[in-house]
Amino acid sequence: MADIKESIYRELVSITNGHVTREPEELCCYSYDATGRFFLPHAVVFPAVSHEVAEIVKIAAKEGIPLIPRGSGSGMTGGSLPVKGGIVIATSRMNRIIEIDDETLVARVEPGVITGNFHHAVEKKGLFYPPDPASSSFCTIGGNLGECAGGPRAVKYGVTRDYVLGLEAVLPSGNIINTGVKTAKGVAGYDLTRLIVGSEGTLAIVTQATLKLLPLPEAVKTMAALFPSIHKAASAVSSIIKDAVIPRCVEFLDRSSIACVRDRFGFHVPDDIEAILIIEVDGSCGVVEEDGKNLETFCVKKGANRVITAADKAEASTLWAARKALSSALFRMAPDKINEDIVVPINRIPEMVLRIERIQKRTGLPVVSFGHAGDGNIHCNIMYDKRYKDAQNLAESAVDELFEATLELGGTITGEHGVGITKMKYLPREIRENELKIMRGIKAVFDPGNILNPGKIF
Amino acid sequence: MADIKESIYRELVSITNGHVTREPEELCCYSYDATGRFFLPHAVVFPAVSHEVAEIVKIAAKEGIPLIPRGSGSGMTGGSLPVKGGIVIATSRMNRIIEIDDETLVARVEPGVITGNFHHAVEKKGLFYPPDPASSSFCTIGGNLGECAGGPRAVKYGVTRDYVLGLEAVLPSGNIINTGVKTAKGVAGYDLTRLIVGSEGTLAIVTQATLKLLPLPEAVKTMAALFPSIHKAASAVSSIIKDAVIPRCVEFLDRSSIACVRDRFGFHVPDDIEAILIIEVDGSCGVVEEDGKNLETFCVKKGANRVITAADKAEASTLWAARKALSSALFRMAPDKINEDIVVPINRIPEMVLRIERIQKRTGLPVVSFGHAGDGNIHCNIMYDKRYKDAQNLAESAVDELFEATLELGGTITGEHGVGITKMKYLPREIRENELKIMRGIKAVFDPGNILNPGKIF
Repeated sequence: MADIKESIYRELVSITNGHVTREPEELCCYSYDATGRFFLPHAVVFPAVSHEVAEIVKIAAKEGIPLIPRGSGSGMTGGSLPVKGGIVIATSRMNRIIEIDDETLVARVEPGVITGNFHHAVEKKGLFYPPDPASSSFCTIGGNLGECAGGPRAVKYGVTRDYVLGLEAVLPSGNIINTGVKTAKGVAGYDLTRLIVGSEGTLAIVTQATLKLLPLPEAVKTMAALFPSIHKAASAVSSIIKDAVIPRCVEFLDRSSIACVRDRFGFHVPDDIEAILIIEVDGSCGVVEEDGKNLETFCVKKGANRVITAADKAEASTLWAARKALSSALFRMAPDKINEDIVVPINRIPEMVLRIERIQKRTGLPVVSFGHAGDGNIHCNIMYDKRYKDAQNLAESAVDELFEATLELGGTITGEHGVGITKMKYLPREIRENELKIMRGIKAVFDPGNILNPGKIF
Repeated sequence: MADIKESIYRELVSITNGHVTREPEELCCYSYDATGRFFLPHAVVFPAVSHEVAEIVKIAAKEGIPLIPRGSGSGMTGGSLPVKGGIVIATSRMNRIIEIDDETLVARVEPGVITGNFHHAVEKKGLFYPPDPASSSFCTIGGNLGECAGGPRAVKYGVTRDYVLGLEAVLPSGNIINTGVKTAKGVAGYDLTRLIVGSEGTLAIVTQATLKLLPLPEAVKTMAALFPSIHKAASAVSSIIKDAVIPRCVEFLDRSSIACVRDRFGFHVPDDIEAILIIEVDGSCGVVEEDGKNLETFCVKKGANRVITAADKAEASTLWAARKALSSALFRMAPDKINEDIVVPINRIPEMVLRIERIQKRTGLPVVSFGHAGDGNIHCNIMYDKRYKDAQNLAESAVDELFEATLELGGTITGEHGVGITKMKYLPREIRENELKIMRGIKAVFDPGNILNPGKIF
């Protein structure tokens, strides 16, 4: 890897008032994400305002240096990895919540704001920002925008895309653009806002987002339904959604997931339980009480052995902490995992569960499934030990079969993690050449020099 | 206007099995929309399936003939007008509801389906498709997609964009593409779906849409709050939304609007009433009862003289019929109107009302305001008689001042009608050159020959 030119480094120092580094031990900290892959950048800059981002981009454009926007590096598909070296633009200093307007229910934030901090800030004002990826305590709004993050509450409330009204962003030319509106509605011109959201940092660097908020629901009720059969749990999911009430979350944990966090739920989970559904409803106090009771009866009717309702916020938090600990707790089972976030139509979940069992049987590898069953989004974790070549090959063939089954059932290979680098080779199975050609054309319109997060998506 | 070549006409006849016309008296029927402007096409084709659309597009591409997709021609900004002649692609024969899946809450429809028919069809299955433009009894889903239509229920439920999961569309090359997903979630590749929605038929011709549905709310309550002061009504709107309950509609009618449909409400409206808010809540029976009562008290506290709650569906329908009749009833006031659908942040509505009064005073023209106040979307109708040159000039200066005020207050020049031809010259006031350049670039990626709905937006 060639170093960055001294003259360029000096320019970066001058633009950011010294907030730049090329020290190898510091570069290391910006070389990985949740995929466990590792690519060293040439430098990391920490701009404080959009103007500085624009100046950095102009230099990189002139020199043809790759630029990689990065939030907390919690991505699951390598979106923030400097696969071709270059300059990482860390957004950690652009972390201001500029405004939370409780009259218009609109907020303006910088990309480096931690999602969880934003949740707390709006909730203090009696407002609500629904997108809640499992990593919310450390991921950033910028990263959420890049991947169009979802989370458990997407069942009822939708994903990041649905809460973005407008963006300020820096184009690969260094020009600053403003997209969208500050109002609830707006259709002037093409929808650049939602084109940039989910583009995985390949079209523009977001420097500010105008987000839509909702009033905070008066009450929330969280419950766990314990099923002795994974198939009964899977078929319960699609029946719940068909019902007139849409819960805000329907999370699913299979037997292996339960095993990984068994001691953390805050209640005893008998050994014969094959699946747990975590269901959450929200709304006014009366509604939540009624919906909660109906769902309890419903789950028992659908085969649940027991439904445990969290008595208070603390119990609900314990339950969610167990769910959120899952992703890392899986490493108890094997040192490596391939984590895929497939989505199938909810009425195909029972079939998908069968297909996953078949993959486990064929490969002999544990495939742990959990996730946002309420919208058909299942996180399938193929556990293996990559020191063994055979296991690596088997794991890859498992992914192959998993995606094949997903697409066959009318699904998509990624519900919220994005394509990044890990799903690049599978993308053409879902999206055909005519569509990819248009996408590449759009990329070239924004970024003719291909300097922005190169080597991603396609 | 040169006629279409005989050989091409014959090809169109052959592709569509004779469903094509070039008779002047028939062309007339496809030459206008709700703007009252008039442009004759060279031919109108009525394809039945996407394959036929693709064949037509290929011929047009080869010959450089403009293609104009058209639903019911109910657009407000000229989106379906053949301003440069060419071939109108009428979607009236592509009007099948292909599937309504009550297990996954997803429907597939062709573009020519009448929105109101689709509402009825899904409601019969206990499902709900929220977007409801005032023209729903005759407009098409295809047109709604083209303009990203909204309607009264957008306050709570969002707009067309929020209900589109995926599209089948024909590119200007004649290639058929499939965008998006059939599932609740999906982030693979760039969001072509939402780029095509709202692109006013300039990027691709939609031939099928996969739409998201909701369970039909158990109960709906409709009420009318009669205010003696327009300013009190305007300030009530933003306070209602701040409240923990988001009604599904908050419609606003000013004094002139009331005058136009006074005899249609189904109740007596005293002369001293300056504004009416039509408020609608939905949800489970208990919630609706409670929310309705709270809103009634709230409106009285905010200065309403009287709140009339519809006793049943029939009374609610009468009220909505009055609201929906407004757009055409306005012609009682003057033979011509310019209809703008500005949006301002909801807490700026009181200020906007003052600005509109100022415009009325300056120009002496009646400016009638009504619309979706709940999301800040006000339909301002400038009434005049275009036979008088002075009135025409005054009306145009009124539009000018209206947009100026809108943008000053942080708003947008179009909430749901699109830019089409009528707002083209104003677009650069809201969207600057850097953003427009990207939009033009995207247009060129999809449509290098500029054959698809040319002369629109920019």
